[in-house]
Amino acid sequence: MITTPFTRSFDLQHPVVLGPMGGVAGGRLAAAVSNAGGLGLVGGGYGDVEWLKTELALAKELARRPWGVGFITWNISEAALELALEARPSVMMLSFGDPRKYAATIKAAGCRLVCQVQDVAGARLAQEAGAEVIVAQGTEGGGHGGARATMALLPAVVDAVPSTPVLAAGGIADGRGVAAALMLGAQGVLMGTRFYATREALGHDQAKQRIVQGQGDATQRTRVFDIVRGYDWPAGYTGRALQNPFIERWHGREEELAGNVATEGPAFWAAAADADYDVAMVWASEAIDLIDSIPSAAEVVEQISAQAELRLRSAAGLLE
Amino acid sequence: MITTPFTRSFDLQHPVVLGPMGGVAGGRLAAAVSNAGGLGLVGGGYGDVEWLKTELALAKELARRPWGVGFITWNISEAALELALEARPSVMMLSFGDPRKYAATIKAAGCRLVCQVQDVAGARLAQEAGAEVIVAQGTEGGGHGGARATMALLPAVVDAVPSTPVLAAGGIADGRGVAAALMLGAQGVLMGTRFYATREALGHDQAKQRIVQGQGDATQRTRVFDIVRGYDWPAGYTGRALQNPFIERWHGREEELAGNVATEGPAFWAAAADADYDVAMVWASEAIDLIDSIPSAAEVVEQISAQAELRLRSAAGLLE
Repeated sequence: MITTPFTRSFDLQHPVVLGPMGGVAGGRLAAAVSNAGGLGLVGGGYGDVEWLKTELALAKELARRPWGVGFITWNISEAALELALEARPSVMMLSFGDPRKYAATIKAAGCRLVCQVQDVAGARLAQEAGAEVIVAQGTEGGGHGGARATMALLPAVVDAVPSTPVLAAGGIADGRGVAAALMLGAQGVLMGTRFYATREALGHDQAKQRIVQGQGDATQRTRVFDIVRGYDWPAGYTGRALQNPFIERWHGREEELAGNVATEGPAFWAAAADADYDVAMVWASEAIDLIDSIPSAAEVVEQISAQAELRLRSAAGLLE
Repeated sequence: MITTPFTRSFDLQHPVVLGPMGGVAGGRLAAAVSNAGGLGLVGGGYGDVEWLKTELALAKELARRPWGVGFITWNISEAALELALEARPSVMMLSFGDPRKYAATIKAAGCRLVCQVQDVAGARLAQEAGAEVIVAQGTEGGGHGGARATMALLPAVVDAVPSTPVLAAGGIADGRGVAAALMLGAQGVLMGTRFYATREALGHDQAKQRIVQGQGDATQRTRVFDIVRGYDWPAGYTGRALQNPFIERWHGREEELAGNVATEGPAFWAAAADADYDVAMVWASEAIDLIDSIPSAAEVVEQISAQAELRLRSAAGLLE
């Protein structure tokens, strides 16, 4: 069993956290990860309160161990935050934006604050906010993120906030990545895409199949899906998705797309409802090369942890 | 001492290869890395035959162990390649382009072929070319490179070419990165920027100082330095440099810059000659956060290897 100060402090059996993917990481998936000995986080998404109410109730009902919720910091609605805190999650993760204005509220509710950051400057801000754990998220990760990559960002964050446990996110989908992250100084990992392709994830089966069949060479960071959905993400954040005809058509023509949202928007939402992923996006990590099945979330947690343990045991064999 | 099939096959004492940085990795630096037990590669650059002649002679004179040369594949001149092979290096590394047309010539000269790739498709091409070793280079690396990041690219390449030793490049500048790369399945690492900031590197002292003082949050991939220099890099390759006023001025306005090369070009070359790095580029990895001194190349090889060894020994401590 892999143990770090982070796993001990959060009473985890495995150093594995579920990325709180909006619309994908519902209560069932979060509870499954937590019950397997990891830490499951429900995805707060863009603040759909009815969806969140249902999923929080499900997490609460199913989880036998600590679980949490994650929010998009720049887009938090007070109503959604209040609702989440009322469900009494053990952990609240904030990502994408300045966490300082919410830290006091979260801590006062008895919730442990985890902040995900995309650069070293963000790590310093998270430390200032009093984050108990900082997640360093590399650009190779699926969905929204920044520009820096995990291999160099992670040790730089570890050095910048030496008294705070750091987790690694971005580009990790098997035990090799977990072992590598631990060598870089992380105390655990957060994975999104690997858990997207599990049975408990709320994503459409067609999306999960595309992840299993997709290639890491064919994902891309882009703003086109934010523009067509009318989400005003701050500068510096883009979303990594599988390349598809919609990206081919609009990437590089963002201003033109913005001028056509009146027609492109409804077409997009219709495609999303129809699971037409030639138009709608499948957020995906570059690590999809390492994903070739749709198991249960518990199997993911257990198999990846076991593989990481084997890797770490093999380290001694590299030394003469 | 860290040993892998790669280090044994190439008779290395440390799993560390010098990135063949054009204009920076001269004969003195390559020999210093090789003599310290790593593998030093002279940077072939853009085919300046006089420069190359001098540096090859220096490598040959100073190296007491195997050394090599690296070329930019799409830009190889027959004259430079012939010159390099006449110097009888042990290793020839090709990067950025299809290596198949040069493989036979290189092997016929008794030289061992190493290919650096930026995606999984490139790894398959390198295998087809008969590369003895494949370097998987992540986008976080300094200078020219592709779009994929090390953490997910490396294990995907290892899986794609299971019978070929793979090295990791991009974002590695200390022993933590070496240990992480080995956990991901690499048999060694290639580092550029870390060796740029050494005493033997040919770069200007001011450039080395900027690397030491620079921040990983403030590097950027861009085509502006290729455009202003008139180098016609194929699509998909960009160069990672420290952000500076020249990038601020021209990045995003590439077509306009291309139209102004008649005036901007001479100004650029004058600035480069004057070591004015507000205009000229300092190629730099995101890993510069981990670089805070300008030691000898031998110190880099030895200290990084020792740190990696310590990390790998510590792996067992993570297991209960």
